[in-house]
Amino acid sequence: MPANTSFLQDLLTTIAERGRQLIPQSLIGGGRRDDIQALAKALLTSQGEASGVAIAREILTKYRSMSVEGRRAFVRFVAETMQPDRESVLRAATSFIASPDDASLSALQAAVESPRQEFFRRLNLAPGATGEIVALRADLLKQGRADPALRGLDQDLQHLLYSWFNRGFLVLRRIDWQTPAAVLEKIIAYEAVHEIKGWEDLRRRLDPADRRLFAFFHPAMVDEPLIFVEVALTDVVPGSIQAVLGEHRKPAGTRMAPTVAVFYSISNCQEGLRGISFGNFLIKQVVEELVRELPTLKTFVTLSPVPGFARWLDRELAAPEAANALIPPADRSALAALRRSNWADADDEGDSLRGPLLGAAAAYFLRARTSDGHPVDPVARFHLGNGARLDRLNWLGDVSEKGMREAHGLMVNYRYELDEIEANHEAYENAREVAASKSVRSLLRAPEKPRSDVTRRLPSPGR
Amino acid sequence: MPANTSFLQDLLTTIAERGRQLIPQSLIGGGRRDDIQALAKALLTSQGEASGVAIAREILTKYRSMSVEGRRAFVRFVAETMQPDRESVLRAATSFIASPDDASLSALQAAVESPRQEFFRRLNLAPGATGEIVALRADLLKQGRADPALRGLDQDLQHLLYSWFNRGFLVLRRIDWQTPAAVLEKIIAYEAVHEIKGWEDLRRRLDPADRRLFAFFHPAMVDEPLIFVEVALTDVVPGSIQAVLGEHRKPAGTRMAPTVAVFYSISNCQEGLRGISFGNFLIKQVVEELVRELPTLKTFVTLSPVPGFARWLDRELAAPEAANALIPPADRSALAALRRSNWADADDEGDSLRGPLLGAAAAYFLRARTSDGHPVDPVARFHLGNGARLDRLNWLGDVSEKGMREAHGLMVNYRYELDEIEANHEAYENAREVAASKSVRSLLRAPEKPRSDVTRRLPSPGR
Amino acid sequence: MPANTSFLQDLLTTIAERGRQLIPQSLIGGGRRDDIQALAKALLTSQGEASGVAIAREILTKYRSMSVEGRRAFVRFVAETMQPDRESVLRAATSFIASPDDASLSALQAAVESPRQEFFRRLNLAPGATGEIVALRADLLKQGRADPALRGLDQDLQHLLYSWFNRGFLVLRRIDWQTPAAVLEKIIAYEAVHEIKGWEDLRRRLDPADRRLFAFFHPAMVDEPLIFVEVALTDVVPGSIQAVLGEHRKPAGTRMAPTVAVFYSISNCQEGLRGISFGNFLIKQVVEELVRELPTLKTFVTLSPVPGFARWLDRELAAPEAANALIPPADRSALAALRRSNWADADDEGDSLRGPLLGAAAAYFLRARTSDGHPVDPVARFHLGNGARLDRLNWLGDVSEKGMREAHGLMVNYRYELDEIEANHEAYENAREVAASKSVRSLLRAPEKPRSDVTRRLPSPGR
Amino acid sequence: MPANTSFLQDLLTTIAERGRQLIPQSLIGGGRRDDIQALAKALLTSQGEASGVAIAREILTKYRSMSVEGRRAFVRFVAETMQPDRESVLRAATSFIASPDDASLSALQAAVESPRQEFFRRLNLAPGATGEIVALRADLLKQGRADPALRGLDQDLQHLLYSWFNRGFLVLRRIDWQTPAAVLEKIIAYEAVHEIKGWEDLRRRLDPADRRLFAFFHPAMVDEPLIFVEVALTDVVPGSIQAVLGEHRKPAGTRMAPTVAVFYSISNCQEGLRGISFGNFLIKQVVEELVRELPTLKTFVTLSPVPGFARWLDRELAAPEAANALIPPADRSALAALRRSNWADADDEGDSLRGPLLGAAAAYFLRARTSDGHPVDPVARFHLGNGARLDRLNWLGDVSEKGMREAHGLMVNYRYELDEIEANHEAYENAREVAASKSVRSLLRAPEKPRSDVTRRLPSPGR
Repeated sequence: MPANTSFLQDLLTTIAERGRQLIPQSLIGGGRRDDIQALAKALLTSQGEASGVAIAREILTKYRSMSVEGRRAFVRFVAETMQPDRESVLRAATSFIASPDDASLSALQAAVESPRQEFFRRLNLAPGATGEIVALRADLLKQGRADPALRGLDQDLQHLLYSWFNRGFLVLRRIDWQTPAAVLEKIIAYEAVHEIKGWEDLRRRLDPADRRLFAFFHPAMVDEPLIFVEVALTDVVPGSIQAVLGEHRKPAGTRMAPTVAVFYSISNCQEGLRGISFGNFLIKQVVEELVRELPTLKTFVTLSPVPGFARWLDRELAAPEAANALIPPADRSALAALRRSNWADADDEGDSLRGPLLGAAAAYFLRARTSDGHPVDPVARFHLGNGARLDRLNWLGDVSEKGMREAHGLMVNYRYELDEIEANHEAYENAREVAASKSVRSLLRAPEKPRSDVTRRLPSPGR
Repeated sequence: MPANTSFLQDLLTTIAERGRQLIPQSLIGGGRRDDIQALAKALLTSQGEASGVAIAREILTKYRSMSVEGRRAFVRFVAETMQPDRESVLRAATSFIASPDDASLSALQAAVESPRQEFFRRLNLAPGATGEIVALRADLLKQGRADPALRGLDQDLQHLLYSWFNRGFLVLRRIDWQTPAAVLEKIIAYEAVHEIKGWEDLRRRLDPADRRLFAFFHPAMVDEPLIFVEVALTDVVPGSIQAVLGEHRKPAGTRMAPTVAVFYSISNCQEGLRGISFGNFLIKQVVEELVRELPTLKTFVTLSPVPGFARWLDRELAAPEAANALIPPADRSALAALRRSNWADADDEGDSLRGPLLGAAAAYFLRARTSDGHPVDPVARFHLGNGARLDRLNWLGDVSEKGMREAHGLMVNYRYELDEIEANHEAYENAREVAASKSVRSLLRAPEKPRSDVTRRLPSPGR
Repeated sequence: MPANTSFLQDLLTTIAERGRQLIPQSLIGGGRRDDIQALAKALLTSQGEASGVAIAREILTKYRSMSVEGRRAFVRFVAETMQPDRESVLRAATSFIASPDDASLSALQAAVESPRQEFFRRLNLAPGATGEIVALRADLLKQGRADPALRGLDQDLQHLLYSWFNRGFLVLRRIDWQTPAAVLEKIIAYEAVHEIKGWEDLRRRLDPADRRLFAFFHPAMVDEPLIFVEVALTDVVPGSIQAVLGEHRKPAGTRMAPTVAVFYSISNCQEGLRGISFGNFLIKQVVEELVRELPTLKTFVTLSPVPGFARWLDRELAAPEAANALIPPADRSALAALRRSNWADADDEGDSLRGPLLGAAAAYFLRARTSDGHPVDPVARFHLGNGARLDRLNWLGDVSEKGMREAHGLMVNYRYELDEIEANHEAYENAREVAASKSVRSLLRAPEKPRSDVTRRLPSPGR
Repeated sequence: MPANTSFLQDLLTTIAERGRQLIPQSLIGGGRRDDIQALAKALLTSQGEASGVAIAREILTKYRSMSVEGRRAFVRFVAETMQPDRESVLRAATSFIASPDDASLSALQAAVESPRQEFFRRLNLAPGATGEIVALRADLLKQGRADPALRGLDQDLQHLLYSWFNRGFLVLRRIDWQTPAAVLEKIIAYEAVHEIKGWEDLRRRLDPADRRLFAFFHPAMVDEPLIFVEVALTDVVPGSIQAVLGEHRKPAGTRMAPTVAVFYSISNCQEGLRGISFGNFLIKQVVEELVRELPTLKTFVTLSPVPGFARWLDRELAAPEAANALIPPADRSALAALRRSNWADADDEGDSLRGPLLGAAAAYFLRARTSDGHPVDPVARFHLGNGARLDRLNWLGDVSEKGMREAHGLMVNYRYELDEIEANHEAYENAREVAASKSVRSLLRAPEKPRSDVTRRLPSPGR
């Protein structure tokens, strides 16, 4: 029985409505209109209090219509001119050093607060501004991180967006064939793992009774998913993406009682929210939703790509044997067969490669480390950091061109076991311990050595 | 024709839904459960990343069930223990002084950031947390501002809430007889200017075709209005609240073409959002909504109380005549009649009082100032600060017990004229100039003197 | 994942929207506007095809503004003038008799079809018309059933409304504290069994976690419940309404796992839908909704009044003893004590009355019959006809003034047992068998006699 | 302030919700389950009262899964066995002839009422039944109208659906890019005039600011549009569909103030509702909606095909000249050029054909008549019957293969002028007068003769 939610639902409608609001022309004087920098300054002054909504709207409209160079100039203007007053900061810092108490700390905090943050808070007064601020940060990120002023601006923006996109404000929605086309086309565009090839392909991902697609939204960006996950409901843990996405598979009927939920694709949608992580929350809340809807579900696994494997293996094989104990000598020569483009089609080849390749993959996950001690694989870092366990390595799990190129066809399952999540997470955070099933561990081909000997140091993963 | 908004509307439903979500019990170990301080610490550590939602939920549940003393102790615990590390701040401050560049500034900003803010951001992970954090701040405000640690905590909370309750995230809703009872009962409870005496009285405020009630909501607090305004649609600017709220007035039919919108009551609802101002935005957006719905509307005025008038006048009359040029000597004796309790009923009395009283009121608005140069009346400061003009003083505009006691029956109209708002606001902000109509100015009874001579300095208005 | 349902609200919007539609004035000529009869005729002609919506709207507006006499005259006009053409019927009847085949039957069906039905179908073109047509039938029913033309009109209207208010078009809604006030006030007004004394009393009926209120709505009458049922969730079958509605009872928390659902009040709301039964469907669908929401529920019972008992007992006791074997002679004198107004307060009295009174009640339900063989009690006829079983008689179950007056305090529980419903219903329909528990049967005090001997014939229950 | 309207979505939810309802298995006995005829009989008896919803659901599920032959057999079973009892009808007819009064008429009406109607009313108890009953009628219509029993059944079904799909129950919805994909794909499928070639083509029809698409829905069939109209907003009355639907046209911006609304495509969606007309209401309500949204709109025209023109012209040209005065002799030879497949591309040909072809078209609309006096063109009959005026003939208005084949490229504009609608409609209904502009009349090439001379009698248009 549905709760009466009509009132709640209505709340959001005005957001769209406000987009159409009449901006009182009187609130904006003549000449300033042409000068986005003057408008930006006005927004930070007392004028911003009287006419803030209109000024903010004007700035965003102007920004959107500017050339790439114009946008860069404006972003630099904000970065450079809306900084804390250095003299004030020096004074406050000096006072704090002289007398480090609550009052001087408060004063120092106030002095260092960047006017750039207040600028963006006021920019957000305009209807629809939140999405445009996110887009502005995406523009900024394209300029790289060389310039310290821009880096500072990005830091301010990330800080602000981290606060605004707090998980407590996000709304989880199931996306299905009843979802507006305006949202569905974004799903097609944003899918980053297994491409969606048009509307019919999309329908196969979300319409059948044994498929689910969930996304997080922010109330101020209602058309724009922030992140989404695609789920297959089934009875067995699948070992290949072909089994999940095959065009001719027969969907389960509505009377199924699935026991396994497979998270087979997770896509971040907003470049402008880089560094603000939703995936962890998304997976856990989707598990809750699914359990509530389908109490027969007992197993929650991913079917995940291994994007760094082939590159890592190339490097390992290229390195002098002596420097490397991760790949046993016997396997090194067997693995040379991977250079042949169609090795997967040759049955014999496949059989003789299987052991060495899975062994190398086990080493890749369990022993290889970046210079700061993390696993090399970015997807592994994500799921292990969330408390999942590496459960199974799948030989030829993705035979697409991309799958073969990046991972020699390998896919893996990470498993989310409610009872272990916190312990796995803690062990990973504190000691970089990789939670893995026995079956994965048993694939290792070389005896474990003291880590300091065997690890090939790779660069630390950035954000 | 309505826009298709079903999808947007649905977004909010999960908020309610999430309130019912199953918190995985496994995520919370046994003993800690009893210790809100241990939970709060865990929330700030890596455990908070794995089990944040559940821990946050537990903290809030515990907090809600605690005694006043328990709550105070917990608030103090957060205030005192979640402070920036002083050593780190000292180091960063010293570095900045040595070399004040972008990098050292960034480092200093990071060092002074209060862990209390991150604590509340993580607390907000729990479903329904936002409203409870606002309530926690209301608890905190009750403890006063004497303790510097609590003051710092409040500063952090206000900063965070100011960012979260950015006007860009607020949603304007019309409240009417189709609104859920759960919201309507809040309107009855929160009306702070002209008390609503039960459901029938409420209906008279929002159901007739010539009445409107608008409120701001935040998407994460859907049942809770933040601020609301009551509006009467009419053809004349009313001079008394009796004319607006009389029980036996005949509502205009639906075919009316009103020309005047009267904002006769504005109430802030959330004590925990004190210092975060919505009123300015509310009035301006409601003007826009009304213009769109009813293009015949041309005049936007308030019918406002004068809460500080009687107290100010008492003080003026009690002061030695010589020290005071705001009330002419002749009027001082006439005004003595105000001491009689039923002067308003005596026709003669009324007539002879009218001139002196309105003259005193004109002086109260136009000449009296606080020590920092603001008008004495708090309602005047609000509307003048928004760019409104003081338009008319209304003799016996509110003959209720409260109206007579606080303002000798006086009510006033502030007028919002789109063309003037920005100029009025600027003149007020920069020079404390009070925008007033000729008719108000003409009520002054004593010649204007240089301000330094005549102003009785009152304490500055706090927030 | 929530099912989203702003059904009511959105229906409302559509109606409101349509209510504002511009009726093209050109579509209605001058003089006709004053003449509702001319308008009604026009609606049935080809003009009705071009301007039907506007003409229908005009008729309904006029009708609503007319005096009682005016309305009666209009209703009579419709009843008398919009009849099938008798000549055509005679011809078609004659043809059919001459040659009774499919074609002549079709022709006869067409000939007897009452233009009154088409009139009301066209009247329904106007926005909001459905509710007004229902109200018009309520007006008609007040005029009694003496006049054959009016009776025929009522028959047509009932036939039409029976088709329009088909259960397949009704929507079940939970009514709670999130429901719009406009609907809630109707619930207060329409409660017909246990009066709701204002908004606080209403809240006690629908807000606590252990209470539910469900109503059927029609999409074209969104503000108007058609019928509603109030439910208490509990652990025991209650024996008194005081236990259910006591002001100071402590509601169960949200973590309860109730096993019993008690339907303690069912109210029909629309007099104009008299004779069109929804109660059967309502109870069964509410059972389904409750089972889905709360799988712990195992027992579904009513707590029902016995509105005809006291009157029936008076009649039985007044009749000569010989003519009546339903009350044993010994009990007749004991029951005389019921004449004392406060017998229920006298403990001794109560004890000695209990057996005879419950015995008489058992006879009332199990043996007394109307002239057409139905049980005497109208509530019993409803629940038994739906397939329920008479489960328990409750001594002093309703000590309100009304309960004592109508039923000497008696209340009963009917039980809905899924496995028995169809069999009970069939036995009742075919043989007037009353399904009753052993405990009720055991209360009988006189040996059963052949029915023809013992039944006091009462008038048959009309609708 | 927005009108809120998640109507569709919410209706959907209710249906989906009901679709999941637990049908109490106990309510349906074993053997009957296999026998749709036994179930159908049970539905009409007292069992239908106790278990109607479940039995109805079962019948519909069975029906859907049956072969075409099975369905035909079932439909025939209903048609033949659920007829009025002929004996009773004979008795009632005889009584009425003997004494034709209100009572005997009522009795006759009751006797002839077809049990088939009650059968479908009870079938409608099942969730989602309405759409399935409409589909069943579509099945029935495929069987043709030869069999009188089936014809009678269709008559009953049409009568019932006419009552259920009363315009007062229909809901107008704007369809746009925010509409659920499940509805949009129906629009693609049902477009019957100018094919929609996939999702991008669809988007061009409803997403740009100068396009609208409106549909009628019934609350019990929420996914299924009943009829829809596509509208272009512009500044000139377009003369060709290429101008409206050209892929590379530049949509007007949102700040346009269009003056002309062009209805360029109207599609009925439900074959099972044949004979129940919505188009008239749809056009008029869409005009109202558009006027409300865009008060600058002054002109409402269609851009319509002329589906019968080429066939009619062939016939005229094939007939002996003497028998036909609609095409002047000189034009007959000129029109022979139409036989060349690419005449439209030959500039000279085009010029010399223009006059004769438009002249023939004017005769087609203004003079040609069916045997019962209607215009020959079905689209013309629809718009003229609604009160529109034939406004303009457009030479080469549709150069698609279909447009050339059916109408030698001709398209026409019908104009809806509020002031004339009723008069045009009446003149058409009463005297078959065709409202046409002077410009159309001036295209006629032969002098008007008495109609009886010139009209080529064509078969009357059935539905």
